[in-house]
Formats: sequence, structure tokens, C-alpha cells
Amino acid sequence: MKRSKINSALLLHFISIVMVFESLFMLMAVGVSFYYKEEIAFKMLLSFAVTFVSGVALNVLTRRERYHEPSIRESFVIVCLAWVIMGLVGTIPYQVTNSIPSFTNAFFESFSGFTTTGSSILADIEALPKSILFWRSETHWIGGMGIIVLVVAIMPFLKIHGIYLFYSEASNVDNEKISTRIRKVARNLWLIYMGLTVAEIIFLSIGGMPLFDSVCHSFATVATGGFSTKNDSIAGYSPYIQYVITFFMLLSGINFTVHFLMLRRRFKSVFHNEELRAYLLVILFVGGIITLVLYFIHQEYGLESAFRSAFFQVVSIITATGFATADYLQWPVQAILLIGMLMLIGASAGSTGGGVKVIRHVIALKKMKLTFSEILSPNKVKLLHYNGQRVRDEHVTQIMTFIFVYYFIVLIGTMVMLLWTEDLATSFGAVATSMAGIGPGFGTVGPVSNFLHLPAGAKYFLTFLMLIGRLEIYSVIIIFTRTFWRD
Amino acid sequence: MKRSKINSALLLHFISIVMVFESLFMLMAVGVSFYYKEEIAFKMLLSFAVTFVSGVALNVLTRRERYHEPSIRESFVIVCLAWVIMGLVGTIPYQVTNSIPSFTNAFFESFSGFTTTGSSILADIEALPKSILFWRSETHWIGGMGIIVLVVAIMPFLKIHGIYLFYSEASNVDNEKISTRIRKVARNLWLIYMGLTVAEIIFLSIGGMPLFDSVCHSFATVATGGFSTKNDSIAGYSPYIQYVITFFMLLSGINFTVHFLMLRRRFKSVFHNEELRAYLLVILFVGGIITLVLYFIHQEYGLESAFRSAFFQVVSIITATGFATADYLQWPVQAILLIGMLMLIGASAGSTGGGVKVIRHVIALKKMKLTFSEILSPNKVKLLHYNGQRVRDEHVTQIMTFIFVYYFIVLIGTMVMLLWTEDLATSFGAVATSMAGIGPGFGTVGPVSNFLHLPAGAKYFLTFLMLIGRLEIYSVIIIFTRTFWRD
Repeated sequence: MKRSKINSALLLHFISIVMVFESLFMLMAVGVSFYYKEEIAFKMLLSFAVTFVSGVALNVLTRRERYHEPSIRESFVIVCLAWVIMGLVGTIPYQVTNSIPSFTNAFFESFSGFTTTGSSILADIEALPKSILFWRSETHWIGGMGIIVLVVAIMPFLKIHGIYLFYSEASNVDNEKISTRIRKVARNLWLIYMGLTVAEIIFLSIGGMPLFDSVCHSFATVATGGFSTKNDSIAGYSPYIQYVITFFMLLSGINFTVHFLMLRRRFKSVFHNEELRAYLLVILFVGGIITLVLYFIHQEYGLESAFRSAFFQVVSIITATGFATADYLQWPVQAILLIGMLMLIGASAGSTGGGVKVIRHVIALKKMKLTFSEILSPNKVKLLHYNGQRVRDEHVTQIMTFIFVYYFIVLIGTMVMLLWTEDLATSFGAVATSMAGIGPGFGTVGPVSNFLHLPAGAKYFLTFLMLIGRLEIYSVIIIFTRTFWRD
Repeated sequence: MKRSKINSALLLHFISIVMVFESLFMLMAVGVSFYYKEEIAFKMLLSFAVTFVSGVALNVLTRRERYHEPSIRESFVIVCLAWVIMGLVGTIPYQVTNSIPSFTNAFFESFSGFTTTGSSILADIEALPKSILFWRSETHWIGGMGIIVLVVAIMPFLKIHGIYLFYSEASNVDNEKISTRIRKVARNLWLIYMGLTVAEIIFLSIGGMPLFDSVCHSFATVATGGFSTKNDSIAGYSPYIQYVITFFMLLSGINFTVHFLMLRRRFKSVFHNEELRAYLLVILFVGGIITLVLYFIHQEYGLESAFRSAFFQVVSIITATGFATADYLQWPVQAILLIGMLMLIGASAGSTGGGVKVIRHVIALKKMKLTFSEILSPNKVKLLHYNGQRVRDEHVTQIMTFIFVYYFIVLIGTMVMLLWTEDLATSFGAVATSMAGIGPGFGTVGPVSNFLHLPAGAKYFLTFLMLIGRLEIYSVIIIFTRTFWRD
């Protein structure tokens, strides 16, 4: 089977769309800059102008490609390129205003934003101009939007790793054109995304958080990003605000098609959603254990603050947000291990959260249970069901393979990171947190530290892992295979 | 489908066989005791007499069951019982002679022996009488024999986790009675097992190791056990002896059906055996890296001793033997991580070694590679081949599930161990080393420490993990499922 050539003009056309789209968000940051009468306001305007003009120019030059439908191979390249370009363009405000002078650091911060990771190289966040902080939070929000479109609307067409089945409630995979489909599905999901953001802004404002901070934190919550406008993240805010953020992180880690079903009042489907149940169960269980560990073993918290601290951190990590109200590295080792485990579980599929995803673990555990009955009655065919539907064997295998590949990359990645850090906890933490798009890790990259001290090589390596993790691994790795480029 | 009841008399009959068999080996230790004119000689004789007489009595009482073929369910119970009984009976010499006064410690030592783990609770090994050291090494040798029969001759009938395909060269799975089959296959494999043991004794003796030590170390090598007669394991012996032991550990970690093919001069099959190639490749690769790390980073070794130390430890860990010539906990962190990785890889299937096994990782990696081509041409059916034969999808899934279950137990086990140790390295090390049947772990149970200081609960927990790991997980876990006992 001879494959079609990759059409460079088409790629450039998609890049131009990304640039124009991104420049419009930059314009909002320009507004913030003028509103607060910042010195850098004109530099922000310049950043916008450069991006907007080059984006539009590129779009015009490649306008013939508008009606061209990308092939599977082209889609993979477009998706990867989209994130890389977003990350590169995102450095412009940091660089032009000299807020982050080093390109490596600016790229790390920008890419960490767009992949909704939230790992930062900033030591003193509060020293930055408000417009830059706003832009930083926006990168999360744009990245979160992108990932929803990608996973819910585009990935099903690529038929990879067998999870497309699980969105069938909200969409039908048929022969629609991708562009039509994106518009249809994305509209509903973006409305939910918007709704969550606005609701959180309101609840945070009620709790006395200034509007600017409320907006930034809401962007970072709903995208499960984790950039804060404060040096100590959420630790300095009131218990009310911490509970509000916990609640919205929890919501943002749920499959957005579940929110969609909620709005359609299909509560029965929601109630029986197995991934949702497992997700809540893990949070309750791990949060409960850590509460007990903090209260009885750590003994530095009262019961309420142990509860609040445990659940804030648990939800923040499992949803891959990465906000912090406590330094979990100071907790007893049992709690630290559970935090590490949560990093490997991940949020729900179809949310803005990262990681392996709860659903894959649910399927793997079901398969494990099934295996026991298979051994006892080898001649009886056993079928795996998820949400009442049969899951085909090949999809089960795909899911098991995904989990294996994910852990494999974490292992290899940790070994590679050791070349730079010489510390196991830091290496594992940096890799696990980047792959899952969380933010803080272990060792020298814990919740009260940052990634500034890492060598440039390590920073680029971690951004690569962020990309891999964000795009569900295969979409990136495949571009590096020989098969992909063989005609 | 109504299942047959479990026949207790049949179970007792099998137990009696295990006891008589074991008592004959005890008799050899009695011989050693009299030869060295030990004070405990008559106590050793007593141990033998008690075991032999009760075994024979039980056998006579249950002799009606001789021609009874066990059902699948009964087979599982028999296999688990066999190991537990071996472990219990094995404590008799330790207890009667008061060499290990605490029953918990005696059981740990005995069980660690029969599962060919080699984790010890002894602080001063050299203080023990020679006959007890001999018995200790024998427990390995008996356990290794048992595992060969189990995995190569019995497990294929249980049709679990899809690895039975890979022994097809040496045996055909058909409707033979289990007892006939065991005799036929086991005879060839025991001859190889014997041959390896005798060859190693000769090579060690040539190097100047006393006959007694040669025999004990050969028992422990070929069974991939790891009990030594010396406090510092193999560290005090000459480079020649260390190389000999490395070589025999390497051989013992190879699928015994490969040795069988070698003897039949079917070198082409041997050469193309993919598990063998992967096994050797991993050893060469990891051994090579650690050699470089020790020479250039650690800088406490010359080149030859870096090479020798690296390869000894690598082969000892991947084959799950657990002998030591160096304390790898003192090595640079990159080397320690690689050692940890080897603990999770495991030896070849069908060897006396433990762990996940190389073959399962080979299949998983092949499946991973296949996935990429599946994504690019979703309509083309891709088949997974191993040693030139097609592997059915269901077996691939079973293998992926096994790997998942294994890692899952390591994770949960580490969490449970934290209740006793409060130290992550110790907990993970103890669990990983017990599951894979290696011996030394990390933290406070490293190569120069022992397991004595752990609380009794932790010791019983680890013996349970040894059993699970030794019997390829399912065979044990299944007995604890509801399905198993439901009529």
C-alpha cells in the first residue's frame, strides 16, 4: 500500500490557524496589560501583532488548502506540530518583555502551560507583571481546549488504543468529515468548559479572591494545569477557597461526556459510568487513608485540616492539576507512596487531565478478574463488559499495551533523567509528573521547588515527555518510527 | 456447571509423597552430620525419622488414592499445599537442632529455601553446623526440581497465562495423564539439572573450593537460590570461582528446554530462540553499562574487577539467584536503578529462575511495536510471531495481564510493607526480591544485611509473596477467589 505524500502546504495552513487563534488570546493579555498600565504594555501589543500578522499572512498564502481533508499520517503530524507551534509562539510574550530571558526556560514554561502540566521554572512568580501571569494561565486554558477537541473529536478517527468506544454516548463515529465533526462535538464540550470556568470564577470571587486571581486560577483549574499567581500556590488562601478549588479540580478530571450527560439529565447513565465510580472511589479511598496518616502518624494537622490537605493534594495529583496547599514531601512515607501511585493512575479519559487514565486501569483490573474464571473453566468464553457494553478483545489488548508502554517510558525516562540529576526521587518525580502533566514531582522538583535548576538538556527532555504524555503517547512516537516514513 | 468436591484424601496422599521425598534428602544431611561427627547428628537423625515415618504412614493410609487423577481445582490446591508443606517440614531440622530457635525465622528460612529465593534471617551463617548448612542448600535444590516439574510438566495442563505454547519444543500437550507426562518430561529435565550441578561442583573444586562448599554452592546456583555457606556470600572467593558461578547462574536462568535442544544438537532452534537472545542481550547491555558506571563514575574498581563485579551482580539478580560479591547499594544511583529493573524483568520461563520472565517482556515489546503499524494501517491485520510461530491474541492478552497483575502486586505489597518498615526502599526491595525469588533487596535488606530485623508479620507476608511469585501468581491467588469455592 503506497501512502500519500505529506502535504507541507496543508501543515502550514493548520499552523497558521493555530497562530491566529493563539494571537487572539494574546490580545486579551494585551488588554490586561493596558488595564493595569504596565510598562510592558506596548511590548505585549508587539507580541500580539507579530503573531497575528504572521499567522494571517501564512493563512492567506496557504488558503488553497482550506478544503483539503488531512490523511491519517498528516493528522498525526498536524497534532504534534500544533502543540510544538503553540509552545514556540507562546514564548513570544515571555521573550519580548524579557520576563523570562532564557529561551530554554521560556519554552519550558510555555510548553508546560499548553500541555496543561504546570511545572514551572519561575522562582518568584509574584515578581512578574500581571499580563504575563495572565498569559501564563491562558496557555493552560488554550491547551485544555485543544486537548478536548483532540481526544474527543479527532482521536476516535485514528482508531488508536481502543478508548474511542467510551465516548460513544456523546458522539457517533461515522464518515463525517473531521472538520464537521470537530465543530459539532467541540461546541458542546467547549460550552461545558466555559461553564465550569465561569462558575469557578464566581465561587472564588464569593470567597474574596480578587477577580484577576480568580480568573487565572479558574483557567488553571478547568484545564487541570496548575500554574498559580502566587509563590505558595493555594496554601495562602482560606479553607473555603481550597475546598472550592478541590471541587472544581474534581469536576475537571471527569470525562466531559459525563458532564454532557448530566446536562441532558441522563443521571442513570452517569450513575452507572464505571470510570466515574472508580475515579471517585480512588479519591475517597486514598484521600481517606492519607487523612488518617496525616492525623494519626504525622500529627501536625487537626482533623479538618488533615482532611482538607489530604483531599486537596489527592485531587490535585490524580486530576494532574498540580496546585498545592502543602508540601507532600514532608508527609509520612505511606502518604508519599500513595501520591506517587496517583501520579501513575491519571484522571478520567476525555477530561483535560493526564496520565494513564482511570478507564484503562478499570479495564485492566476487569481483565485480571476475568482471567481467574478463565483458568477455572477454560472452555467457557468470558466477555469483558464496560458500562454494559462488550469490549472487544483487541481493544483490551490495546489498552493493556498502552499501560505497558506508558510505564515503560516512565522507566526509561527515569534512567535518562538520572544522567542529569543523579537522584532517583527527582528523576522519577520529574518524569512521572511530566508524562501525566501534573506539575510538581519528588526530590528537588517537589511542590515547594521548581524546575529552574535542571540543565537545559533535562528541560527539553521533560518537554518532550509532556508532549508524549499529553498526546497519548502513540500520536507522537509513531512519527519517529521507520514505518511512518516508509513509502 | 457443578464442580466436583475437593478430595481431602487425595490431597493428603500428595502431601505424603512430598514428605517421604523430602525425608530422603534429609537423610543426606544426616549423613553429612555423622561424617563431620557433629553433636547434633542424632537430632538430625530424629528429624529424618519423624518426617519419614509420618510420611510413610500417611502414604499407606491414603494409598487408595494412588490411581486417582486430580481435577484442575485439586491440582491448584495440591501445588500450593506442596510448597507450604515442604516449607513446614523443612523447619524440622532447624527447630529440632535448635539452630534457628524461633519458628517464624525457621519457617522464613525454610520457605525462602524451597521457593529458591535465598533471603535469609541468619546474621552469622558460618556459626551453624555443616549439616544444617547442607540442609539449607538442599532446600534450594529440592525447590528448583519442584519448579521444573511444575512449570514444564504441570502448568501447561492448567492452560494459564499463555506461556505453555513456548515449551512445545520439548513436549506435546495432549491427553496424556499428568502422572505419565511428569515422568516423561521430568526425567530429561532432571538429568540436565543434575548435569549442571555436577559440572559446577567439578569446576568449583578445580578452583580450590572445598568439596562441601562446592556442593552447597552448586545446589544454590542451579536452583537459582542464593544461600551461601559464607557470611560474605561469594565475595571472599577468587575471581576464577566468581566467573564460574556467574557462568552457571547464567546457564540456570535459561529455559531448560533450550538446554534440552542443545543436547539434541538442534543449535539452529537454540540460536533463533528469541527469549534466549533477549535474555543474553539484556545481560550484556545492562552488565556493560554497569561496568562503565563502576569504572568511570564509581572509580573504586579496576576495569577487570568492575567487569566481574557488574556481570556477577547482574546475572545473579536477573536469574533471581541472589549471590553477592559486592554491595550494590554502595554503587552509583544509575547502577542501583538498573539492578531494580532487573528485579522486575526476571529470568527465562522454564528455568528455575523467578520474576515476570523475559519471554513475557519480549511478547509485550513485540505487541508494542505491532501497535504502531496497526495505527498506521488500521485495516490490515497484524500477527504476532514468537520463534516463528503465531501467538494467538488471547495469549498476548493473558501475558499482558500477567505483567499488569505482577506489577500491581508489587505496588500493593510495597504499600503493605510500609506498615512495618516505614521505608520505601526497604519495602519495595523486600517485595520485589521476594516476588521474584531473588534474595537481597534494597534499604535495610540489601546484599550485606538480612531479614532478621523485620517483624514477624512482615516475614510471613514476604513468605506469602515468595509463594505467589514462585507459583506464577494465578495458581495461588485463585484459591482465594470466591469463584474457586463456589459449587
